[in-house]
Parts: sequence; C-alpha cells; structure tokens
Amino acid sequence: MEPFALKNALGNVRNTTPLVHCITNYVTVNDCANALLAIGGSPIMSHEPEDVRDITSICGGLVLNIGTLDERSVAGMFAAGERAGELGHPIVLDPVGAGASALRTRMAGDLLDRLPVSVIRGNMSEVKALAGGAATTRGVDVCPDDAVTEDNLASAASFARGFAAKTGAVVAITGAIDIVADAQRAFAVRNGSALMGRITGAGCMLTCVCAAFAVANSDSLLESQVAGVAGMGLAGQVAEGRMGAPDGNASFRTYLIDALYRLGGEALEAGARVAQLD
Amino acid sequence: MEPFALKNALGNVRNTTPLVHCITNYVTVNDCANALLAIGGSPIMSHEPEDVRDITSICGGLVLNIGTLDERSVAGMFAAGERAGELGHPIVLDPVGAGASALRTRMAGDLLDRLPVSVIRGNMSEVKALAGGAATTRGVDVCPDDAVTEDNLASAASFARGFAAKTGAVVAITGAIDIVADAQRAFAVRNGSALMGRITGAGCMLTCVCAAFAVANSDSLLESQVAGVAGMGLAGQVAEGRMGAPDGNASFRTYLIDALYRLGGEALEAGARVAQLD
Amino acid sequence: MEPFALKNALGNVRNTTPLVHCITNYVTVNDCANALLAIGGSPIMSHEPEDVRDITSICGGLVLNIGTLDERSVAGMFAAGERAGELGHPIVLDPVGAGASALRTRMAGDLLDRLPVSVIRGNMSEVKALAGGAATTRGVDVCPDDAVTEDNLASAASFARGFAAKTGAVVAITGAIDIVADAQRAFAVRNGSALMGRITGAGCMLTCVCAAFAVANSDSLLESQVAGVAGMGLAGQVAEGRMGAPDGNASFRTYLIDALYRLGGEALEAGARVAQLD
Repeated sequence: MEPFALKNALGNVRNTTPLVHCITNYVTVNDCANALLAIGGSPIMSHEPEDVRDITSICGGLVLNIGTLDERSVAGMFAAGERAGELGHPIVLDPVGAGASALRTRMAGDLLDRLPVSVIRGNMSEVKALAGGAATTRGVDVCPDDAVTEDNLASAASFARGFAAKTGAVVAITGAIDIVADAQRAFAVRNGSALMGRITGAGCMLTCVCAAFAVANSDSLLESQVAGVAGMGLAGQVAEGRMGAPDGNASFRTYLIDALYRLGGEALEAGARVAQLD
Repeated sequence: MEPFALKNALGNVRNTTPLVHCITNYVTVNDCANALLAIGGSPIMSHEPEDVRDITSICGGLVLNIGTLDERSVAGMFAAGERAGELGHPIVLDPVGAGASALRTRMAGDLLDRLPVSVIRGNMSEVKALAGGAATTRGVDVCPDDAVTEDNLASAASFARGFAAKTGAVVAITGAIDIVADAQRAFAVRNGSALMGRITGAGCMLTCVCAAFAVANSDSLLESQVAGVAGMGLAGQVAEGRMGAPDGNASFRTYLIDALYRLGGEALEAGARVAQLD
Repeated sequence: MEPFALKNALGNVRNTTPLVHCITNYVTVNDCANALLAIGGSPIMSHEPEDVRDITSICGGLVLNIGTLDERSVAGMFAAGERAGELGHPIVLDPVGAGASALRTRMAGDLLDRLPVSVIRGNMSEVKALAGGAATTRGVDVCPDDAVTEDNLASAASFARGFAAKTGAVVAITGAIDIVADAQRAFAVRNGSALMGRITGAGCMLTCVCAAFAVANSDSLLESQVAGVAGMGLAGQVAEGRMGAPDGNASFRTYLIDALYRLGGEALEAGARVAQLD
C-alpha cells in the first residue's frame, strides 16, 4: 500500500485524538467507548434528537449503529447524520442485524439513502441485505453461506466494489477474511482471531475504530479503513496469544482492547496481512 | 438425576448454539451477551416493538428481564412474548426488583399472566412478590428474611412447587441455596460463591444461561434448568478459586464468564451439588 | 481533616451498605454498579417515571447523571429528585457534557434549580458551564484551558466555594488536581492517575462512590466527599501500579474497580493527599 503507510494512518489517529459521536447500541457501548480511547480517539455518546446536532458539531465523525435501534435513537441518527453531512464529517454505518428483521433492513437502507455515508462496516450477510440481496442472517452473525472464503474471494471483492460504486462509500466487509473496497480497488485483510466471534462487540468496536481512522485520515479514506481493519485484526491476534489456561471470552475482551491500546505503528506495518485484489 | 445427565444438557447447548432473544436491562446487558456466548449460545438484543416479532422468529428462546423496564421495552416484551408463544419458544422471565416498586410487581405479574412463561428465575423476594406474597425487597437483592437456608428449605421447596403448579412454569429461586422446581419435583443446588453477590449481573447472566439450556433441552425442561443453575454456581466457585491478592469484584466478573466459557461436561457432573427434595 | 477521619467515612460506607438509586447513562452504567458494589454500597437503576418514586423511596440516596439523557430519563430524574427531596436523601448531580450542548447545559441547570442537590461532581468545564461561565467543553472531557493546575488553584478554589455558596451544594471538581468545597472550606486532593482519563467512566463511577459516601456520612457531607474523591484517586494509583507490559486501558478499568473493592481505611488515611486551601 505504498506510498501511504499503515503506520502513518495510526499515527494520525494517535496525534489528533479524533472525537467521534456514536449513536450505537446499549449492548456494546461501553466496549465501543473504551476501544475508541484505546486506539487514541475520544468517544461521546448521545442519541436524543434534541441533543445530537450540538454534539455532532463539536466532533469530527459520526458512528451510526442500529444494533438496538428504537424510534428515538433512529430519529437521533437522522438528525445527527444531517448535521454531520453539513459539516463534511465522515459517517460510518454499522447495519447490525440487517436482514434479520424488516425494520433493520429498512432503517439501514434509509440511513444509507438519505445520509452521505462514508463507510459501511458489517458482515457479509448484513451488507448483502443492505444491498438488496440475500435477506437472511443468523441474528447478528454472518450466515455460513455468506462467509468470505479463499474460494469466493474474487466474487466477494467484486460485490464490494460494486456496492461501493453504487453508494459512494468505502465498504468494509469483515469476517474470517476481511474485504475493504471502494469503487476502484479492493483489499483483502487476513488478520484476526476466531475468538473475536466468541465475544459480543468485536464488530461494533471495529466500526468505532474505523471512524477514528476516517476522521484522522480524511485524504486517504480507503487506506485508512484498511489500516483500521488490519489493526483490529492484529489486536485480536495479540489478544489470542495472551490467553492462558483458565481464560475465556471475558479475558479475551479485555486483552483485545488492551492490544488496541498498545498497538504500535511498526507492529502494525509488520503484522498487517493486506493484499490488493485484482 | 439419572438417566438425564447434566453433562448432556450442557453438551446440547454447546452442540446447537441456541440463539436467544433478550429483552433485558441496560445495566448488565453486555455481561448477559458474553455469558450466553460463553456457555455456547448466541445472543440478540432488541426491545423495539416494531422489531421484536421478526427477531424472536429467528431465535429459539426469549428472555424477559424487567431490570430497567420502561414503556417501550415493556411493549416490546409483550409483542415478543406473543410471538414466542405462537412458535412454542421457551420464555424465561426474570422479575428483577418485583416487590421493590408497584410497577415492577404489576408488570412482572402481567407478563406471567398473559404470556406462556416456561421458566421464572429470580431471588426469593422477587418470586414471593410475583406470587402475591411478601411485598418488600431490598432493591434488587433478596430480603434477609426471605433467604433460603437449610432450616426453611422444605417450606421453600413446597412454595416453589406450588407456584410452579399454579403457573405451569419451572421455578428457579437462586441464592445461597438454589431451588429448582416444577409442580412435581424440587431440587436443591448447593453450588455458588458469595462473591456472586458482590457483582452486578450474576442473576441476569444466569437467566440467559437458563434460557440457552431451555432451548437446547426442550424435552427435559426441569433437568435443563438444574443443569444451568448448577453450571453457573460451579463457574462461581471456579472464579472464586482464581482470585488473587489484588483482585476484587471486577476481576471476579471476568473470571466468572471465563469459567462459563471453560465449563466442561465432566466437570459439571463432578462438581454439581444437586439433591432432590422430598 | 481531624477530628473527622477519612477511614471513618469509608468504614461507615462498608458498615451500612448504602443503597443508591442511579439514573445514569447507558455507557458506563455497568461500571457504576460494580464500583458501588466495590466500595460497599448497593446500586439500583431505574429511569422510568412511573417507577422511580417507589425505587427512590427504598434507597438512601440518588445519582443523576445526564451522560445520555433523553426525554424519558430526564422526566424520571425530576420525579425521583422530588421524592428524594421529600425524604431528605442526598442527591448527587453529574452534569456530563454540560457546555457541550445547549440541552445538556439547560437540563443540568434545571435539575440544579428545581431539586435540592447535595453534591455536584464534574470536571471544571462542566461545572463552569453549569455556573453560567465558560460555554465550551471538549465533549465529555475537560477543556485544556479549564484544567486546574498549581498556578490557578487558588482561583479555582474560590470559584468552587462561590458556586457552593450559591447552590448550597458541596462542589467536587475533579481532574489532575481535585477540589472539594462547600461555601466555607475548600480542599485540594492530589491523588489519582492519568490513566483514569484513558477509560470511559472514571468520573461516572466517582459520582456513584460519592453518593455512597454522602448517604453513609450525612453529618459530615463535605468531609465525606473528600474521602470519596481521595479514595477513588488512590484506587487509580493502585490500579496504575498493577499495570503490566501487555496491559492497556481495559485492564486498568478492571484494576480500578478491584482497587476500590480492596481499599482499606488505613491505606486511605496513609495514601490520601488532602490539603485544606486558604
């Protein structure tokens, strides 16, 4: 990915402390806040429609995560998104559970249609549902049939590029193999740990981390998202390496955020397994 | 508990990854999700009335926890519960704070009256309040006068069986000694750790674990709940054994979920202290 | 601080298990509950207007934290606050993000105007905004220009005393140097760790801890708040001392709550760095 270096993207986050407004679900919100602080950003959460314009105005970017959407938070998402659009802030959309319910599929679609979304970060089932394709997910996890593998990687990348072209957003589809694409280019990221699927919130945290990278690297949006996705995956590997005999998923959660906190630019460059796809 | 073995109940959870829809409080929701993942299930949270029918439809069971109830979440509980009833999914009710406020007592009662609840999991004060008996609790903790002891165990078991007969649900009353009963049989479970009372969420997590056991063992509901209660208690003992000199309740919380993650069928069989009561 | 000893204040918390009703934000609510349990109190969370009068009635004190306020939780705050006032319970107000949005500034002001608030706990930017002074904050963090330093300590203490005189509340302004003041006296507390700014919730947890100290020490409100602030700071120092090479902010969070749990009266007396200001 020369001349843009992954470590520069991380350095820009660490040096600028991007303030990110998060309208997100209450399941993983604490982890999202601590993950943002770990990577070098600063979180502020607010969903009340009367409050969100002011809050977005003092931030640099916006996360919209529909994991536990309700009437009030959705109204807040639209109000905040409009303001973020006026200010040119990157908006990162996490369509949690799109495909799992009609409401989620429709709301994720409406947010994408009506707001200038910069990045879409989800699993393949969610992104397919958002794109109007497959209409089933296994709750908040990827449907096995949708998982990106070495065998279907080329077609998955093609889908990601196409959806990026249609929406104007960078598309980050994460799973065992991650794909990060804009309309022209697609990258595969082969970092990560299977344990990330045994905790709640790995995806939600990544979405917030991606927002911090987007805010701090506005001139290199695609590359910044590759850096965020690779950084999170590498943190997962570090966390897995720290697991002792009695440790389970709760310790892994702690180690994962710790690893984001400790992530260095040189380690990211050395450990990132990024490949541009044809 | 022959011929049904506790390890089989756990094995059924691990082998089928029961998807559990949780409408639960925002205090302990993250721990609930990670506890469900630890035991081998998969959580999805949604409280929005417009969303819950679809979400329940793709799940195998439903948790209703009134710990931070409000208008919208209660409406979601009824809508989800009706759908779960149509589908024959087990519903596990956790009447957090019943007896502590008129609203909680009434709402817990309404949920129980109007929905086909399969399992009631609470402390003795909450279950008594739900049964129309004692009307006081010390917040979300059991009232000392209500605690189950060796001395009042027989009458507590009789109460549990009677309430199970009246409601048609399995009744799991947890505390220093746990009682799990249906209309015919009652079991005492003597696992657990006093430290479980020094964290928030041990009860909420148990309720979700019980739901996973209920979904995965639909032919042996009573036995499955004994397995869930004993498993959680044993995890508490393992977590207590792991406590080092500087550790406090936050480490205990991590160790507890870790222990659920590591819980094996043979260890459960060997460590469970279950006795059928006359 | 003779003859009132910090260790007595802590002992009163440990010996009476103060039950604290918290209407607080969903970002840090789990940490707030576990911090309250760690220090020796007991939490109950409820925001629903129909529920809060009953819940406050069985508690000893009330926390109002506007970190993720919305229509319903604000209505609950006023209802609970009125009831707490009737009962003479201490109310601790945490004006999270006051100054960051018009709504937060106004709501924090309204709560202060209409309810008999006993303690105000915030960072200097928030407290200034509440006092009608500076109107900007960097999200939920203190604005660098507002930070209390050795150079501006005297004027900061004078401000705190003045605001305490105006409101009738004890004012606890926390940061690198903490100030705790009533109308007559101000204390500087020089405990703490910079890592407390790298997790979410250190302030929210402190607010809850302060409430437990207020409930358990109603005859010595000012001194009790000095004890709570010093105790939290000391816990931060202990937690920092426990950090190992791979640890990050997630481990620090665990260690901080653990340290509250392990905090002893003698250690508090020996470690507290409290100085009365002229």
